[in-house]
Amino acid sequence: MEISKSQNDPELASLKIAIVGLGLMGGSLAMALRGAAGKLIGLDRNGRTLKRALELSIVDEIAEPIEVGIRQADLVVLAIPVQGIVSLLEALPDLRPDGCMVLDLGSTKGEIGLAMEALPEQFEALGGHPMCGREHSGLDAAVVDLFQGETFILCRNARTTPAVEAAALQLVAQIGSEPLFMPASVHDQLVATSSHLPYVVASLLMGRAWAQAGQDRRLWQVSASGLRDTTRLASSNPEMMLEIMLTNRLPLLAQIEAYGQELTDMADALRRQDEPALRTMLETIARQRDAYLREKYGQDSIRLDGKVI
Amino acid sequence: MEISKSQNDPELASLKIAIVGLGLMGGSLAMALRGAAGKLIGLDRNGRTLKRALELSIVDEIAEPIEVGIRQADLVVLAIPVQGIVSLLEALPDLRPDGCMVLDLGSTKGEIGLAMEALPEQFEALGGHPMCGREHSGLDAAVVDLFQGETFILCRNARTTPAVEAAALQLVAQIGSEPLFMPASVHDQLVATSSHLPYVVASLLMGRAWAQAGQDRRLWQVSASGLRDTTRLASSNPEMMLEIMLTNRLPLLAQIEAYGQELTDMADALRRQDEPALRTMLETIARQRDAYLREKYGQDSIRLDGKVI
Repeated sequence: MEISKSQNDPELASLKIAIVGLGLMGGSLAMALRGAAGKLIGLDRNGRTLKRALELSIVDEIAEPIEVGIRQADLVVLAIPVQGIVSLLEALPDLRPDGCMVLDLGSTKGEIGLAMEALPEQFEALGGHPMCGREHSGLDAAVVDLFQGETFILCRNARTTPAVEAAALQLVAQIGSEPLFMPASVHDQLVATSSHLPYVVASLLMGRAWAQAGQDRRLWQVSASGLRDTTRLASSNPEMMLEIMLTNRLPLLAQIEAYGQELTDMADALRRQDEPALRTMLETIARQRDAYLREKYGQDSIRLDGKVI
Repeated sequence: MEISKSQNDPELASLKIAIVGLGLMGGSLAMALRGAAGKLIGLDRNGRTLKRALELSIVDEIAEPIEVGIRQADLVVLAIPVQGIVSLLEALPDLRPDGCMVLDLGSTKGEIGLAMEALPEQFEALGGHPMCGREHSGLDAAVVDLFQGETFILCRNARTTPAVEAAALQLVAQIGSEPLFMPASVHDQLVATSSHLPYVVASLLMGRAWAQAGQDRRLWQVSASGLRDTTRLASSNPEMMLEIMLTNRLPLLAQIEAYGQELTDMADALRRQDEPALRTMLETIARQRDAYLREKYGQDSIRLDGKVI
């Protein structure tokens, strides 16, 4: 028996969905939605990406320029960097005086939420952030199962209606993600710690290792998987991360400051050779990581592709 | 035609080798040396580990206590944490008044080098450090190919002779590693950056995430592979890492201080919203990581077990 739903809820299978930006996220979304939407329209500033998307048959049609596709869509999905999303939201009232449904996949949600709330009443808008990614970007990095089993954060705002929420939930279910609603401000505080601070930490480690290697190239021979894995996020797209850092500045700064203080505390304990204090710190943290892996993945240490993580 | 070598060089196949400590490193070494040594004697403080090593047939025989095995060996390989190595080196003159060859696998080399130089003249000793590891320790984590294709650092000291060097080089070749000689002080400076700083950075990130999760458990749902991989080293054995930090205190403190300054610089640029300065930092670091992967692994981004790293 089907769960009852509002008669006005749109059916994914009848919606014309325009995906703006066919990079890693938009491209993977198109792959995962293929066949489930009424029509998938691919939009991208880059003509070669558009052509490639058609060649790969991951969209039903493409349109140029972007505005042409947006005018035809029931649901516009914005899969571009945060500042691009904000600019497009500002342009929407002129492009679509009749309004439409809007969902975005931006990495920070505060500024986007404010831009959505500034839309006229005929718009129905919801903020979204799928918690997945790879450090490589672009359509060539897109994969059909990028969202499979991952959390998809949804952030309501004053322009959110039951209809756009229903459409978004169908989309999230279709791509195999788990929806999780939370306020934009909470999202931004949490990702500052779970995602943006790790990027900062990894990048500064890469910079430090590079500086040291400049003095002695044997550093690379003396390095192993620890340096490689701990610096992985430093290969993220710099322009995307720059926008994320700037649009999530205050929560990220608070985390950087706390981290810096904790770094100073550990260095002080090491400087005074305080073995008991250091032992307590290191043992506590090792136990915390076990607990985190248990809570998040259901086990102390897990194997991914044959590799213990 | 065989490369000429000194008549006095020992042949691995005729040496009685005692491995002290059958954990991840010693256990993996025993597996990789199996059949290639004259005799492999397994030594460990833990009787259950000894029994397990015999069950697994990774050594020819075991001896208890450790001293009994050390008295029979031509070459003693110390595969225990750094402070244990130093203590055992201090006890060696009494245990082996006749002297013997000694190689160690300790993670820092300065203090061990000094302890080797304090041995009487009848000892022949060389410092070693295979650049590999896993965050899980113990015999159960040991694997036969742990050293395969990895760099094996060798640090000479005043007790190093051609004979112990030849024996060590045969051992290194047998387990599939590449030997690299460097002074102990250079080793310790390089690993402070390539190995110990990454551990500190990863551990503090884990501690920070845990503190934030204490305020809002949804942090784990909002986290993805970035947090998991950047904190991986925080699962290293705390006691082993404590000894490493304490015996490599000054080089590590210098790296932590430089890292802390670079963290402050990035935070300052973010605080004043200096977009050009931040862009330069992030783009430079992303290029540095590409260059590091090229220099170390021969390609910009590499696939390991199907996963882009």
